[in-house]
Amino acid sequence: MNDAKNIIDKLSCPLPDNNYDNITMAHGGGGKMMNNLIDKLFLHYLSNNLNDEKHDGAVFISEGHKFAFTTDSYVVNPVFFPGGDIGRLAVYGTVNDLAMCGAKPAYLSLGLIIEEGFSIKDLEKIIISIKEASDRTGVKIITGDTKVVEKGKGDGIFINTAGIGIVRDDINISPSRVEEGDLILINGDVGRHGIAIMTTRENLDIESTIKSDCAPLNIVVQQLIESGIEIHCLRDLTRGGLGSALNEIASSAKFEIEIDEKSINVTEEVKGVCEILGFDPVHVANEGRFIAFVKKKDAGKAFDILKQEESGKYASILGVVKGKNKYGLVILKSIMGVNRILDMMSGEQLPRIC
Amino acid sequence: MNDAKNIIDKLSCPLPDNNYDNITMAHGGGGKMMNNLIDKLFLHYLSNNLNDEKHDGAVFISEGHKFAFTTDSYVVNPVFFPGGDIGRLAVYGTVNDLAMCGAKPAYLSLGLIIEEGFSIKDLEKIIISIKEASDRTGVKIITGDTKVVEKGKGDGIFINTAGIGIVRDDINISPSRVEEGDLILINGDVGRHGIAIMTTRENLDIESTIKSDCAPLNIVVQQLIESGIEIHCLRDLTRGGLGSALNEIASSAKFEIEIDEKSINVTEEVKGVCEILGFDPVHVANEGRFIAFVKKKDAGKAFDILKQEESGKYASILGVVKGKNKYGLVILKSIMGVNRILDMMSGEQLPRIC
Repeated sequence: MNDAKNIIDKLSCPLPDNNYDNITMAHGGGGKMMNNLIDKLFLHYLSNNLNDEKHDGAVFISEGHKFAFTTDSYVVNPVFFPGGDIGRLAVYGTVNDLAMCGAKPAYLSLGLIIEEGFSIKDLEKIIISIKEASDRTGVKIITGDTKVVEKGKGDGIFINTAGIGIVRDDINISPSRVEEGDLILINGDVGRHGIAIMTTRENLDIESTIKSDCAPLNIVVQQLIESGIEIHCLRDLTRGGLGSALNEIASSAKFEIEIDEKSINVTEEVKGVCEILGFDPVHVANEGRFIAFVKKKDAGKAFDILKQEESGKYASILGVVKGKNKYGLVILKSIMGVNRILDMMSGEQLPRIC
Repeated sequence: MNDAKNIIDKLSCPLPDNNYDNITMAHGGGGKMMNNLIDKLFLHYLSNNLNDEKHDGAVFISEGHKFAFTTDSYVVNPVFFPGGDIGRLAVYGTVNDLAMCGAKPAYLSLGLIIEEGFSIKDLEKIIISIKEASDRTGVKIITGDTKVVEKGKGDGIFINTAGIGIVRDDINISPSRVEEGDLILINGDVGRHGIAIMTTRENLDIESTIKSDCAPLNIVVQQLIESGIEIHCLRDLTRGGLGSALNEIASSAKFEIEIDEKSINVTEEVKGVCEILGFDPVHVANEGRFIAFVKKKDAGKAFDILKQEESGKYASILGVVKGKNKYGLVILKSIMGVNRILDMMSGEQLPRIC
């Protein structure tokens, strides 16, 4: 086994003021430090041919059929927020990860870690919300587990869901399929979930309430698939926002991606709060947004489908995949006409967002 | 939605000094209160034909094949204990739940909720332990998730694993298959895991260290299946111990079960600690023990297989399934010749055992 010094070296990343002996909040922020932890510790020991692509879920073949498998723990604070709650998030989040693999979500597991003293009335609200979300998305919760931890050793409730989806034999959606010339689409405006959580948590006195964009994506993805569009890669935007999602795919696929800043839609309300707080909307979390890498010839058809969705008026074609690049670069063409590298977030912007 | 009063009524159980507005530690203890919470809240809203048997996992048919799906969160305190650690437990525990469905464990997901400040060196030890346990049991960890919560909002590390296993078409292992005359076998002595955790956590000054029985059960279950034994039901003994497992099956299957107390093996060391602490070994947690309900004609063959295992010298035939009983009763024939009802634990004996 490596000693502490080696581990520290392995996990080092360009944040000079962190203590790398111990886990920091930034290790869970969806940015560089989390990706370092995954690559240099988890995948160092646990990598296999099914998990090393770092997709939203793993696709495996069993008994001659293709399935997708994924998991997420939800630790969002507060558990109830404008536009959703931890229960809805726990169903939609995992359903969305399955959808991003091109799978039709079928079954979920439900693991609860509840802090002693948590209100049973609130627990019932969350369970009802889970039921509604599973009915809406057509998944069945078929197995579960409950643990209770002492007061002060948890934070209300944490939920884990794992999901199994069924993938059509001819579907292969993953970063490795990204090609030069692919167009990149998004299904709506960015940053609403993160700002909804932030304003609720901090009791910011903002007149109109910004609602989370928390929504299921499986139906729109099924429409894209069934329309025969050649989809190369899908990724939902959660922690780390659009910036992290683009960088993850660029780095997995080893391509340069060019994004047109003016095609990134942000509502005036979200923009206003971001300006006050010094956030870049491109790194703010979402829970109902995804990007699709599709063959150029199919981009118009895909755009038409996205336009019909609830968030469709903000759907757009974000940019294009340029040539190969061994680091996987994301270039942002700014409104001022200046190009800059859009990096993955280094540390973390806002903890406990999902 | 029900109001608080209704919820309180629904969850009421014979523990007069609890406050039923809020979750108590006993709701996670594996006994009556947890079963009440599952039946009257979770299954009330979420029941379907795949989860209402309250088996260790759910068996579903997809694309013409049978699969098992299960989940468990692990919150054991301390995370390192004699005979194991939270990582090993998180793999073996979920593998064992799959084995109890008669499934061959294939894939695991890994969800980590880490408290800020947790040692990266300890995290590496746990990941290595997960790797070793997955190699030993032949499962692959193919998808994962990492969340970090602020210091004071978690307790070191919580781990969730969900597992997928493959079930042979002709295998149907579940409480509904229990029959009058079935013999009940156990694969070893009881109570070691709970006592190992207890003595470590409380720093009890006991000379010889009692090691957890934490072990994978998939190989022995495969041997039982492959030998052609008619297995009706399997259940691993975790929270709530042998007493809860027997009661859960008796109550699901609606049978009276008769157990011979002298066939329950407890080592002298475990017995000694239990006497000091006032614990009944029959309710103490285990992590490598299971009971098997088999057709009487096959009990001898099953016993021979269990005898060859590491814990085999303590394997025994515990008792027999008597006639139908609508409450599902477990009768313990004591060494003194007196019969008593072995009830499910009411509250909880020892929190955070797994």
